[in-house]
Amino acid sequence: MATKAQKFRLALVQCLPGSNKVKNLQRAAEMVREAASNGAQVVSLPECFNSPYGTRYFPEYCEPVPDGDSTRMLSELAKETKTYLIGGSIPEKYQDKIYNTCSVFGPDGNQLALYRKLHLFDIDVPGKIKFTESDVLSPGQTPQTFDTEWCKFGLGICYDARFPELAGLYRNRGCKVLVYPGAFNMTTGPAHWELLARARSVDCQVYTAFCSVARDESATYVAWGHSLIVSPW
Amino acid sequence: MATKAQKFRLALVQCLPGSNKVKNLQRAAEMVREAASNGAQVVSLPECFNSPYGTRYFPEYCEPVPDGDSTRMLSELAKETKTYLIGGSIPEKYQDKIYNTCSVFGPDGNQLALYRKLHLFDIDVPGKIKFTESDVLSPGQTPQTFDTEWCKFGLGICYDARFPELAGLYRNRGCKVLVYPGAFNMTTGPAHWELLARARSVDCQVYTAFCSVARDESATYVAWGHSLIVSPW
Repeated sequence: MATKAQKFRLALVQCLPGSNKVKNLQRAAEMVREAASNGAQVVSLPECFNSPYGTRYFPEYCEPVPDGDSTRMLSELAKETKTYLIGGSIPEKYQDKIYNTCSVFGPDGNQLALYRKLHLFDIDVPGKIKFTESDVLSPGQTPQTFDTEWCKFGLGICYDARFPELAGLYRNRGCKVLVYPGAFNMTTGPAHWELLARARSVDCQVYTAFCSVARDESATYVAWGHSLIVSPW
Repeated sequence: MATKAQKFRLALVQCLPGSNKVKNLQRAAEMVREAASNGAQVVSLPECFNSPYGTRYFPEYCEPVPDGDSTRMLSELAKETKTYLIGGSIPEKYQDKIYNTCSVFGPDGNQLALYRKLHLFDIDVPGKIKFTESDVLSPGQTPQTFDTEWCKFGLGICYDARFPELAGLYRNRGCKVLVYPGAFNMTTGPAHWELLARARSVDCQVYTAFCSVARDESATYVAWGHSLIVSPW
């Protein structure tokens, strides 16, 4: 649309979820409002922004989408701040399964996308980290994009970024920005976080945003942090 | 083959081709012999090891393959040194076209592969570098692998490394090592050389070798150098 500005401001909210879900939602909302008040038109939250990250927590913190507290909050917050709000992810209860799920809401509060993490994070680096999302979570089945007045966006969550095929699929569908809410750790973070963001951008000639939770050295899963946005060149 | 050692030594020859083709071949041969005498069992030369790199040079330096001086030298040298010799690339004259072509020879001197660069390097970074391989070269049509007693190898040349699809195809065919003779420049080198080698390795869980010509500040095309081998992790 030639009359629309081609530039927009994307903010990544690097919040620090703790064990109190109500406080997690409040803090996320405060930070989204702050981003919007600074001119952000698209805002992303990180992976598991309403819960500590860990297989032991997912059954306790999971909710239905869009009829749970976290997703209702996102819808209202998008409308209040007039932003496109990429709701990081939350553990989603659906039928008898739990998914790692990202919901996106438009400035009118309507849901634009529901994306369930495709590539579950099952890793065993001897002596460093062992983590098996598939013990508790089920994988999604479907890539998801959404449209804004500026461009089309593609969605992934964390370990999804390890797979160039998903990014290439989004590129082929015309996406100009790929957003991956994530929570890499102190082993995979220094090894691959920046590398993968840059690789996806250069390979696909798109902008890539990795939005992480903040680092909490006292957590059972210590996140790398370092949220970043990479240009295509 | 369980009785064979799984480890082998791969050497990258970062030679400095000048305008004298005979000297280029002699120098490349000396360095391959040196690598073999130091235990290398697989040796790669860089892109355009027999010629300066540049569209003006390709018509002058091109040769038939395998019946030209450069390819004959490679065959004899592989046999002499008992190495798998990945002949970087040379401008190849075939029918009425010129290709950027890599030939591979086994320790018995027999040709194992002929690979013609698939993705021609047409680039225009305003104020930095403009280069159009397709002014003179024709693109190849076919990925190429070759087998050794250790594993299967996949071949690309330089800009081919920008395309994860080719690396993914080789991964799917069972390659454990990807070798890209290359000649990135002073713009694309610092931006993408190491990034792409690491990305191809992590994406495909293979070893990736980028073998560059050395840097010659007086050349019309100044190469980045920095030959490297990257592990899958």
